Amino acid sequence: MEIYFDNSATTKPLDKVVEEVVSGMKEYYGNPSSLHNLGLKSEKKLKQCREILAQTINSDENEIYFNSGGSEGNNQILKSILKKGTHLITTPFEHSSILNTIKKLEKQGIKITHLKIDNKGKVDLEHLKNSITKETVLISIMHVNNEFGIIQDLSKIGSVIKQISNRAKFHVDAVQSYGKLKLDVKKMNIDFLTASSHKFHGPKGCGFIYIKKPNILNPLIEGGEQEFGIRAGTQNIPGIMGMTIAAKIANDNLLDNYNKVYKIKQRFIEKICSFKNIRINSLLNDEFSPYILNVSFKGVRGEVLLHFLEQENIYVSTGSACSSKARINKGSYVLKALNLTQDEIMGGIRFSFSKDNTEEEVDCVIDILEKGLRFLRRVNR
Amino acid sequence: MEIYFDNSATTKPLDKVVEEVVSGMKEYYGNPSSLHNLGLKSEKKLKQCREILAQTINSDENEIYFNSGGSEGNNQILKSILKKGTHLITTPFEHSSILNTIKKLEKQGIKITHLKIDNKGKVDLEHLKNSITKETVLISIMHVNNEFGIIQDLSKIGSVIKQISNRAKFHVDAVQSYGKLKLDVKKMNIDFLTASSHKFHGPKGCGFIYIKKPNILNPLIEGGEQEFGIRAGTQNIPGIMGMTIAAKIANDNLLDNYNKVYKIKQRFIEKICSFKNIRINSLLNDEFSPYILNVSFKGVRGEVLLHFLEQENIYVSTGSACSSKARINKGSYVLKALNLTQDEIMGGIRFSFSKDNTEEEVDCVIDILEKGLRFLRRVNR
Repeated sequence: MEIYFDNSATTKPLDKVVEEVVSGMKEYYGNPSSLHNLGLKSEKKLKQCREILAQTINSDENEIYFNSGGSEGNNQILKSILKKGTHLITTPFEHSSILNTIKKLEKQGIKITHLKIDNKGKVDLEHLKNSITKETVLISIMHVNNEFGIIQDLSKIGSVIKQISNRAKFHVDAVQSYGKLKLDVKKMNIDFLTASSHKFHGPKGCGFIYIKKPNILNPLIEGGEQEFGIRAGTQNIPGIMGMTIAAKIANDNLLDNYNKVYKIKQRFIEKICSFKNIRINSLLNDEFSPYILNVSFKGVRGEVLLHFLEQENIYVSTGSACSSKARINKGSYVLKALNLTQDEIMGGIRFSFSKDNTEEEVDCVIDILEKGLRFLRRVNR
Repeated sequence: MEIYFDNSATTKPLDKVVEEVVSGMKEYYGNPSSLHNLGLKSEKKLKQCREILAQTINSDENEIYFNSGGSEGNNQILKSILKKGTHLITTPFEHSSILNTIKKLEKQGIKITHLKIDNKGKVDLEHLKNSITKETVLISIMHVNNEFGIIQDLSKIGSVIKQISNRAKFHVDAVQSYGKLKLDVKKMNIDFLTASSHKFHGPKGCGFIYIKKPNILNPLIEGGEQEFGIRAGTQNIPGIMGMTIAAKIANDNLLDNYNKVYKIKQRFIEKICSFKNIRINSLLNDEFSPYILNVSFKGVRGEVLLHFLEQENIYVSTGSACSSKARINKGSYVLKALNLTQDEIMGGIRFSFSKDNTEEEVDCVIDILEKGLRFLRRVNR
């Protein structure tokens, strides 16, 4: 038996998604920029996909732009909006596609405020209020943190921003929340939103940005007039079709899936509470995504425990896949931002769930974890 | 019957490619950056794909970098190499992902030389020699022009560059030639090469860059450490697997396919020679790709003829799909660069072939073209 508890790294595409990609490759191979019927057929299909995705976040269809995924979306928004002399507000534990991009931008004369966070990981709204200046053009905040699952209150944040500034735009990295939590760009006052298909059982290499009208972005990729001039390059229609059906299924089953995964996390936490020398970094309440459970196992290195578990065909992570190699020696910058001890940081493991996981899998993992910890902590002594 | 003569816009994925993408989605869904076995399995598969692609152009496997396609590759190379005060040499009829990028770069203080071309469309090697200065950092030349199929002599160009400068790098946009013509980056002295999967019967949304060691590029997309730090974002493994099998099949059958398509173009030209008031912009010899035949039909607007043909389920193009909408009023900048008359420019049609086309299809298209021209020229009078 294989137990996949690494769904925040990537998810297995649904069978219906695979079928849709195949249909896209066979039936919609025409280039949507071609002027003939085959092109038109593909262009119409793109429009249908835009409509369906728009409905899932309460946007207009012409506010949805296709791209290659979350990293590209995050890069484009930051690089397009932030010019020399402007000010960005963000958190200390964004995804590497935000943090590494702003490191470069900082050298080009962008000012950056990293918001204070409380001991659970929520951003300090007072600090946000006091940080917005005339130079503030962007507030970039991830909805759900990819390593420990804290949910930021987008409605409150959006409302604070719009009360104080009519210049500052609100960007939400929704890569870990899209298709899992309810998103409403109008109610939440969101100007830009990024999503990535392979995080919600869609194909890899595909994503979308929401750009609130009349905002526009400079292209990161210049060339043809695709995506209304925002992103050049022939659209990946089969990928977009697969992403769209994955998005529709995820959003149609949002609450059921939430409840199912909540029970899985609940069982995991109930069982693991009896373990000694651990720290649970993701609580069981509506401030945390039920899809993510981060636990620090003190006295054990996370990647050693990871490899112990993989011998039993249990797949977990020590944090974000995108910064997996950097983390091996230094530990997670996300857990550091939460003021954990070095021992807790180095022993951090992320279990991330999908609707396809079961409570039986939890029981099995708990058993093997117990054995593993007993063995590894003895060896380490 | 449907006749698809728009293979330069995009190609239909091979059945084997579809199967490979499905296998990728089902068997290799693990994130190659994950530290566990499923990640490792995906990472190994990526390495195999790199090896196979490297063999097709005589490069080393660690000189192959995956991305989302040709436009992204072209953007990354130009934006990474060209800094204020440097000099670029290129042709007047590159793809829009080159020309529109350099328009932006020109405003940032990049000097640009557009090479003179002869009446067939070949770049003037003397002009190239005389244009290279101490500031020249990049020569960017497409192998096969996407609208009329001229083949540039990469070996001669590469040799001229390396004789004169040890600073200037040679970039080849091989989007229309990869998998169709023999490429050898070592013999041709190529430093950078871009290719796009959907042009050689692979999946859309996927491509690769060759970067000669020890050259490196700045990432266009910052974030995770994927692709050796050159391109962040989870790799699209199913797409890469599909692209790789398409590349292998195309390169294994390079000569057979070339000969097959050559005969198709030959038949087309033989038949169309009897037409009045036309100009054949792509000759039948080894200076032009057999995959592309551009013909100007004087006294008829290209897009009117295109729509006439599509009524008969014949799919052609007036030029590059990526600039299809810009061209409707202004005509093709590529044909303009060849010094064609306005009448010839506005009446240009590109027929682009694949190994799956037949001589019977040519005969059918010729018949319908004859009828169409008779009708449309009478209407226009």
